[in-house]
Amino acid sequence: MVRKVAVIMGSDSDWPVVKGACAQLKALDIPFEAHILSAHRTPAAAAAFAQNAKKNGFGVILCAAGMAAHLAGAFAANTTLPVIGIPMKGGAMDGMDAMLATVQMPTGIPVATVALNGAKNAAWLAAEILALGDAELDAKLEAARVDMEKQIEDKEAKLQAEAAAL
Amino acid sequence: MVRKVAVIMGSDSDWPVVKGACAQLKALDIPFEAHILSAHRTPAAAAAFAQNAKKNGFGVILCAAGMAAHLAGAFAANTTLPVIGIPMKGGAMDGMDAMLATVQMPTGIPVATVALNGAKNAAWLAAEILALGDAELDAKLEAARVDMEKQIEDKEAKLQAEAAAL
Amino acid sequence: MVRKVAVIMGSDSDWPVVKGACAQLKALDIPFEAHILSAHRTPAAAAAFAQNAKKNGFGVILCAAGMAAHLAGAFAANTTLPVIGIPMKGGAMDGMDAMLATVQMPTGIPVATVALNGAKNAAWLAAEILALGDAELDAKLEAARVDMEKQIEDKEAKLQAEAAAL
Amino acid sequence: MVRKVAVIMGSDSDWPVVKGACAQLKALDIPFEAHILSAHRTPAAAAAFAQNAKKNGFGVILCAAGMAAHLAGAFAANTTLPVIGIPMKGGAMDGMDAMLATVQMPTGIPVATVALNGAKNAAWLAAEILALGDAELDAKLEAARVDMEKQIEDKEAKLQAEAAAL
Amino acid sequence: MVRKVAVIMGSDSDWPVVKGACAQLKALDIPFEAHILSAHRTPAAAAAFAQNAKKNGFGVILCAAGMAAHLAGAFAANTTLPVIGIPMKGGAMDGMDAMLATVQMPTGIPVATVALNGAKNAAWLAAEILALGDAELDAKLEAARVDMEKQIEDKEAKLQAEAAAL
Amino acid sequence: MVRKVAVIMGSDSDWPVVKGACAQLKALDIPFEAHILSAHRTPAAAAAFAQNAKKNGFGVILCAAGMAAHLAGAFAANTTLPVIGIPMKGGAMDGMDAMLATVQMPTGIPVATVALNGAKNAAWLAAEILALGDAELDAKLEAARVDMEKQIEDKEAKLQAEAAAL
Amino acid sequence: MVRKVAVIMGSDSDWPVVKGACAQLKALDIPFEAHILSAHRTPAAAAAFAQNAKKNGFGVILCAAGMAAHLAGAFAANTTLPVIGIPMKGGAMDGMDAMLATVQMPTGIPVATVALNGAKNAAWLAAEILALGDAELDAKLEAARVDMEKQIEDKEAKLQAEAAAL
Amino acid sequence: MVRKVAVIMGSDSDWPVVKGACAQLKALDIPFEAHILSAHRTPAAAAAFAQNAKKNGFGVILCAAGMAAHLAGAFAANTTLPVIGIPMKGGAMDGMDAMLATVQMPTGIPVATVALNGAKNAAWLAAEILALGDAELDAKLEAARVDMEKQIEDKEAKLQAEAAAL
Repeated sequence: MVRKVAVIMGSDSDWPVVKGACAQLKALDIPFEAHILSAHRTPAAAAAFAQNAKKNGFGVILCAAGMAAHLAGAFAANTTLPVIGIPMKGGAMDGMDAMLATVQMPTGIPVATVALNGAKNAAWLAAEILALGDAELDAKLEAARVDMEKQIEDKEAKLQAEAAAL
Repeated sequence: MVRKVAVIMGSDSDWPVVKGACAQLKALDIPFEAHILSAHRTPAAAAAFAQNAKKNGFGVILCAAGMAAHLAGAFAANTTLPVIGIPMKGGAMDGMDAMLATVQMPTGIPVATVALNGAKNAAWLAAEILALGDAELDAKLEAARVDMEKQIEDKEAKLQAEAAAL
Repeated sequence: MVRKVAVIMGSDSDWPVVKGACAQLKALDIPFEAHILSAHRTPAAAAAFAQNAKKNGFGVILCAAGMAAHLAGAFAANTTLPVIGIPMKGGAMDGMDAMLATVQMPTGIPVATVALNGAKNAAWLAAEILALGDAELDAKLEAARVDMEKQIEDKEAKLQAEAAAL
Repeated sequence: MVRKVAVIMGSDSDWPVVKGACAQLKALDIPFEAHILSAHRTPAAAAAFAQNAKKNGFGVILCAAGMAAHLAGAFAANTTLPVIGIPMKGGAMDGMDAMLATVQMPTGIPVATVALNGAKNAAWLAAEILALGDAELDAKLEAARVDMEKQIEDKEAKLQAEAAAL
Repeated sequence: MVRKVAVIMGSDSDWPVVKGACAQLKALDIPFEAHILSAHRTPAAAAAFAQNAKKNGFGVILCAAGMAAHLAGAFAANTTLPVIGIPMKGGAMDGMDAMLATVQMPTGIPVATVALNGAKNAAWLAAEILALGDAELDAKLEAARVDMEKQIEDKEAKLQAEAAAL
Repeated sequence: MVRKVAVIMGSDSDWPVVKGACAQLKALDIPFEAHILSAHRTPAAAAAFAQNAKKNGFGVILCAAGMAAHLAGAFAANTTLPVIGIPMKGGAMDGMDAMLATVQMPTGIPVATVALNGAKNAAWLAAEILALGDAELDAKLEAARVDMEKQIEDKEAKLQAEAAAL
Repeated sequence: MVRKVAVIMGSDSDWPVVKGACAQLKALDIPFEAHILSAHRTPAAAAAFAQNAKKNGFGVILCAAGMAAHLAGAFAANTTLPVIGIPMKGGAMDGMDAMLATVQMPTGIPVATVALNGAKNAAWLAAEILALGDAELDAKLEAARVDMEKQIEDKEAKLQAEAAAL
Repeated sequence: MVRKVAVIMGSDSDWPVVKGACAQLKALDIPFEAHILSAHRTPAAAAAFAQNAKKNGFGVILCAAGMAAHLAGAFAANTTLPVIGIPMKGGAMDGMDAMLATVQMPTGIPVATVALNGAKNAAWLAAEILALGDAELDAKLEAARVDMEKQIEDKEAKLQAEAAAL
C-alpha cells in the first residue's frame, strides 16, 4: 500500500507557496491531499484529522503556517506520524516568529522543520521518508540528484558566456 | 459570583516562576486553580479544560509555556475567555522563541501577552480584568499603586545614603 | 452600564491600522472613542486621560504606538484599567522595537500585548474582557468562533478546486 | 530488514547532548551507530559515509553540529536518505547560527531540523520515520504518548500539593 | 552658575551600575543628584521632576532603566534639557529590549542613548555637554584623554612581557 | 559666541536623510556646516576635522553613517566635543549593524546615539545641548514643544471626522 | 607566476552581485575564473575543484552563497588556500542566515568573511592578499586609495552646493 | 624576506583570547608582534601603526575588538595590507555588535572577518595568506590538515567506547 501525504495549511493565503509542495509531490507521483485546517480557528477538526491520519492512509503530514505557527505542533501532538513543519515568511516578523514557533518543540513531539517558505523541500523530505519503503520512489530521488547536477552544469555553460562578456 | 483564575503551565519546571502568579492572586484574594496541561503532551485534556472553563466558573486563563509556546494559543482557540500568555525564558533561545510563539496570534484568537517570565504581571492583569466587575478588587488595585509609589520613596531614602557615601 | 473602549494612537499615521480595531468594535456594538495622544508629545494630556478613564466610563484601553512605543506603558502607569498594547510595525526596526517596548513591562504595571499591527485582535481581546460582564456580547463572541470555522470550511472548498487543477 | 540509524556528530564535545539521542534509540530498540565525522576536518570521510549509508543498511541519518553547522547539509548533499539536523547550542551565537545554518537548505536537498540541542527529539523523529515500515515500533510510539500523558498527570498531582502549600 | 546633573534610575537594582556614573561625575567635580523615579510606578513624580529640572539648576539628565525602558523617554517628554538614556542589560532580553525602547524616539523628543550599562559613558557625555560652557571642565576632559592614552601604553608594556612568555 | 554644528556624513548617499538635520538646524537659526568625511576612505581628513573642531568654533558634531558605522566613533576618538551618532538604515542589515556599531562605545569615548535615520532628532538634540548656553534658543525649544502639542490636537480633530465616518 | 582568483557561486541567481567581484578583478588586471558549483547540488565537483585549486594555479578562492551558505566552508575544508566567503542577502532571512553560516567556522578551517553581498570587497581583499607577492598590484591598490579620497572630495563639492540650496 | 604578522588588540582584556592567535602563529614559526592599540583611545598611534605596517615588514594584520569594534576598520582604512578582524564576544550584546561592526565594511576597504573570538582562526587565515609566498609554510598547513583528520579519528575511537557503554 502506498501512503498518502497530507498537505495542511493554516490559511488559504499560504496556498501560493504551499502549492509548490503539491506540484512536487505530483511530479514524483506521490498521492496527496491538500487541506486548510487551522490550529486556532478549527482546532477540533485539526486534532481529529491528525488523530485519524494514520488509519486514513497517510504516511507523512506537511503543515504550513505563519506567525505563531502552531499548526505543525498541533498535528504532532495528535499523531506519531512524521510531521514536517513549513514556517511561512509572512509579514510581521519576516518569518522568524514562525520558524521558532515551529522548530522549538518539546521532547517526544518532534516537528521536522524546513526552511522559511520551504514547501518544495517539505515535499522532497516527505519523498525521502516514503522512499524508505518504496524502491521505485527511491530510484526517482536518486535520478533527481543527477538531474540537479546536470542543471548546474547547464547554468555553468551560460555563466561562462556572461563572464566572458564582462 | 466571583470568577476563578486558571493558572496553567506546560511543565512542572515552570512552577518556580508560575507560583509568583499564584502568590499574587492569593495576596489579592482572587480564587484560582493551578494545573499542568500541555498543548503537546496532553492536547485533548488541554482543549477540554479550555472548552469547559467558562461554565466551570473561570473568568481568566493564564498560560505559561516556553520554547514553541503553543499553550496559550491552544487555550485561546478553545474559549472566548481572555487568555493571558506568559512566555517562559527557558534555555534554548532565551525566551524570544516563546515570546513570538505566544504573541503573534491570528486575528480573532487573541492572546494577551506579558513579559518573559512575567507570571506576576499576568496575575496583575487578570486582577485588572476581574476588577471591572468587582469594586472591592478595584479598590485593592488602586491601593496597590499607592503602595508601589511608597516603596519607591523608601528606596529613594536608602539611595540617598548610598549616594552620599560614594 | 456598558463600559466604553478607548482606542488611543500615538500618531495619525497609525490610523490605517488602528481603524481595524474601531471597525471590529463597531461590528460587535461595543461603544468606543478614538483619540490621538502621544506619550512624548502630549504627556500631560495622555496621563490625564488615563487617570480619568475609569470614572469617564471606559473599561478597556487600547494603545497603538511604534518605535520606542511608550504609549501603552504610560497609560498603564496611570490607571488600573486593563491596557492593551498594539506594537506598530513601522519602518525602522520592523516593529521588533515597538513589541519589546510594549511587552517588557515591570511587575505591577502590566500591558496586555498583541501581535505587531494587531489592532483587530486588540479589539477582540477587549471584547473578551468586556464579555465577562455582558452576556449578550459573550454570545456574539461564541457565534463569531462558529463563523470563523465556517469561513475556513468555505475556503477549503475553494482550495479543493485549485488543488485539483494543479 | 531493520534499517539502522546513523548518529553523526561534528565534534566529540557534542557527545554529552548527542548521547541523549543514542539512549533514546536504544530505549526503543532501534539499532544505531554513532560516529564523529566533520564536514570541515574530514570532508572526504563524511561524504563517503553519506554516499554509502543507504547500501550499508542505514535508514535515517542524524547530524549534530554547532556554529556554521554544515554537517547535516553535507550529508544531505550526498544521500537521499532522510537527514535530521540537530543544531547545537554552543557558545558564540547561542546556537542561532547553527539553527539557521542547518534549516535554510536549498530546494531539493532538505534537512529535517529539530530544536537547538534537540538530540532526543531527533531520535523520536527517526523513530517516527522508521515506524512507517515497522508495526512493532509504531506500537511503541503510540504507547510512549500514553506514557507522556501519564507523566503529566503524575506531575499534576504533585503540583496540587505545592500549590496548596503557597 | 554651574549646572547640576540629575542621575535618575528606575529601580534601586540599577544602582550597582548607575553609581559608576555618579563616581565619574564626582571625579570630575561635577555636582549631581541621584534619585529613584519610575516612569511606571511614580509617573507623576517623574514628570514633575523633569518639568522642574531646568529651573532647579539641572543641565543634563541621565536616565537608567531596563526592559521596556520608558524612563528616559518620559523625562525627554517633559523637558528640553538634554536627556541621556542608559539602557540596562537586565535579564529577560539581555538589554536589547531596553536599548530599542530608549533609542527609537520620535522626532522632536530625542534621547541621547549610550551603550548597554553605559552609565560611566553617560557621565562622560554629560561632562562633554557641560564643558561647552565650562573651560575648566573642558581642560579636565582634554587631560583625561591623555591619561587614557597613557594607560594603554602602560598596558602595552605589560603585554610585551606576557607575549614574550608564550 | 555662538558655536556651530558640524553635520558629517560618511557618504553622499546619506544626504537625503541627513538634510533633515540641516533643515531643522536652519529652522532653529543654528549655524552649521555639512561635510562628507569617511572614517574609512578619508580617515586622516576625518581625524583632522575632529581634532580642530573645537578651535574652529564647533560645539556639537553630528555623524551619520551606515553598516559598520565607525564615523561617529572616529570623531569621538579625536575630540571631547559631544558627538551625536545617526545610524543609517541602509540596506544590508536594515540598520541594526549601524546602530550597534554606533552606540556600543567604550568607556570614556561616548557617542550620543539617536534612532535609525534619526537625523532630525540629532538636530533637536544638538539644539538642546547648545540651548544650555543660549537663552534665545532655549525659548525656541520650549515653544516648539507647545507647537508639537498643538499639532497633535489638530490631528485629533481630523481623526474624529474619520472615526465618525467608519 | 601570477596566481588566478577563483570566483565561485552556488547559484546562477548570485551572478548579478558576484559579477561585481569579477569586474573589480578585471579592473585590477587580476586573472580569474568564474564558476557555478554548489556545496549541496554538486558536492563532489566542488570538493574536487577545491582540492585541485592550488595546483591549477589559483591563489585565492571567492565563494558566494545564500541561506545555509556552506559553499565557502566546503571549499575551505578542501584546500589551504585563503577562502573568502561572500554571504548573499537573499530573501528568507535577509542574509543573516548566510552571514552566520559563513563566518562561524571551526578552528583550523577559516573563511575570510566580508559584508552581505560584499562581492566587490571580496575582490579587493583578494587583491590585497595577492599584492603581498606582486609589487605592481600593490602599487595599484595604493593608488586606488588616493582615488577613493579624491572621489569623496568631489562629492563634498557637490554637497556644498546642495547644502547651500536648503 | 618573511613578513611578520601584527596582532593588535583594543584592550588588554582581549589577551586571554588573542593569545590563542599568538600561540598558533608561534607553533607555525610565523614571526609576529602583539600590541595594544585602540581605535578610540589611541587613534593616532593606531593610524600610524597601520600606515607604517607595510614598510615595517608586516604582511598581515590581525585586529581583535569588542562592542562597537572599529579597530579592524580603522586599520584597514590606513593600509592596503590584508586586515583580519576578530570580533570579541564580550558582554553587552554577546558579540553580535562586534561582528556586525567588523564585517559590514564599505566597498574598497575590506576586513576579512572570522568567527566570534576566532583568534586562532585568524592566525590560520594569516598563515594561509602568507603561505602563498612561502612553500615551507604551505607544507606545514597541508600537514596540519592531515593532523586534524587524525585527531578526529582518535576521538572516534574513544567515542566508540563511550557509545558502547550507554
